[in-house]
Amino acid sequence: MVDNSSAFRMDPEVPLVVPEINSEDIAKHKGIIANPNCTTIIGIVPVWPLHRANPVKRMIVSSYQAASGAGQSAMLEMVQQAREILDGKPVTCKTLKYQLAFNVYCHDSKIGPNGYNEEEMKLVKETRKIFHCPDIAITGTCVRVPVLRTHCESINLEFTEPISPEEVRGLLETAPGVSIIDDRQANRFPMPIDATGKDDVYVGRIRQDESIPEGRGINIWVAGDQIRKGAALNAVQIAEKLL
Amino acid sequence: MVDNSSAFRMDPEVPLVVPEINSEDIAKHKGIIANPNCTTIIGIVPVWPLHRANPVKRMIVSSYQAASGAGQSAMLEMVQQAREILDGKPVTCKTLKYQLAFNVYCHDSKIGPNGYNEEEMKLVKETRKIFHCPDIAITGTCVRVPVLRTHCESINLEFTEPISPEEVRGLLETAPGVSIIDDRQANRFPMPIDATGKDDVYVGRIRQDESIPEGRGINIWVAGDQIRKGAALNAVQIAEKLL
Repeated sequence: MVDNSSAFRMDPEVPLVVPEINSEDIAKHKGIIANPNCTTIIGIVPVWPLHRANPVKRMIVSSYQAASGAGQSAMLEMVQQAREILDGKPVTCKTLKYQLAFNVYCHDSKIGPNGYNEEEMKLVKETRKIFHCPDIAITGTCVRVPVLRTHCESINLEFTEPISPEEVRGLLETAPGVSIIDDRQANRFPMPIDATGKDDVYVGRIRQDESIPEGRGINIWVAGDQIRKGAALNAVQIAEKLL
Repeated sequence: MVDNSSAFRMDPEVPLVVPEINSEDIAKHKGIIANPNCTTIIGIVPVWPLHRANPVKRMIVSSYQAASGAGQSAMLEMVQQAREILDGKPVTCKTLKYQLAFNVYCHDSKIGPNGYNEEEMKLVKETRKIFHCPDIAITGTCVRVPVLRTHCESINLEFTEPISPEEVRGLLETAPGVSIIDDRQANRFPMPIDATGKDDVYVGRIRQDESIPEGRGINIWVAGDQIRKGAALNAVQIAEKLL
């Protein structure tokens, strides 16, 4: 497993920093800056500008994570698995725990006593830390899908005050590091092949969640390249802020 | 698009029936029985026994739907796409709206004025109808993943009263049509390759959702063969009940 969160983390007590999100923390902690987990950062880049305008009370994330999160050998093995399946041969599982090609499995990081895997707990703990919001209610289900790179996330948000899809779109249009693909008529929304190789996190399917009263619910769908925004790019952006 | 819901539906006002869930409806409506949408039925087979024991107040579903939901030609085209990508050739998109092999896209059924696609609205409307519970709060995000058959769903449930993962497991162990794969230590949970060709819906990752107060929240993960339980099998089971 490639654990992106450890790239810059030397002390678990040091607040995690995402440039453009809480850049004041960079000034405070010049020595050690933690780079958040890829699933966390891809999710919170678009949620942060919304949270600043209207605090998020609860966030429910289901992820669609690419092989790249498990490293290059996992990407190569998934391609090998796909060839093997298409050729009717036995499937190799050396780096990957299970068959990933033409299959889906729950993220195979270690599972804690509460049943959540480490990836899901990072999403909870790191989002709270980055948002400086220890009380925000978060739950996640992290899942690996047969995609080479770019993680997608289905995110359900409950806000403090009413908020419309139009307001969300307006806030995201000017948000740093966010691009919107949200063409309902053409059924065109962010896909891994859109985000792969790109720095931005792509957002679409911005909808009112009618299951939350008073217009305080929103569903969004995001796609971000795990290798760029999810890992290296954010570290580079932190470094740039420090220089 | 193969619309499973239309297989037995002749009148949209006729209540949908899932055998074992509301078999009394079969007696009431002997002439016309509607077979629910595949995503709906795969999700509600395990949720129904929980809802009967402790009414579900809110349900949030993110789906991981196989190519089979779009028919056999879609399955074949996804395989063709995978070969083309592995061979570095241009990707064919005739039946499938976009590249599905090594990609993920939001379900391409027609999108209504509220931004939800038909698959998501069926999930909302059919679940309410089958549960005879018009007030249940439901929202969904339906997504196509590069899997041949078997849909998976990440389901977040808010119950009326507190409920523990152990209680959920106990209720599901005796539920008809449900099998549990929930080995936290081995990180072994339901995958499409487990459910493919099987009649049961497989459930795992049964966890307390701490983001809901008073222990009223549960997360589950389900996998069910779209071709068997999602389409033909349920119709056969309805027919059996009628004979």
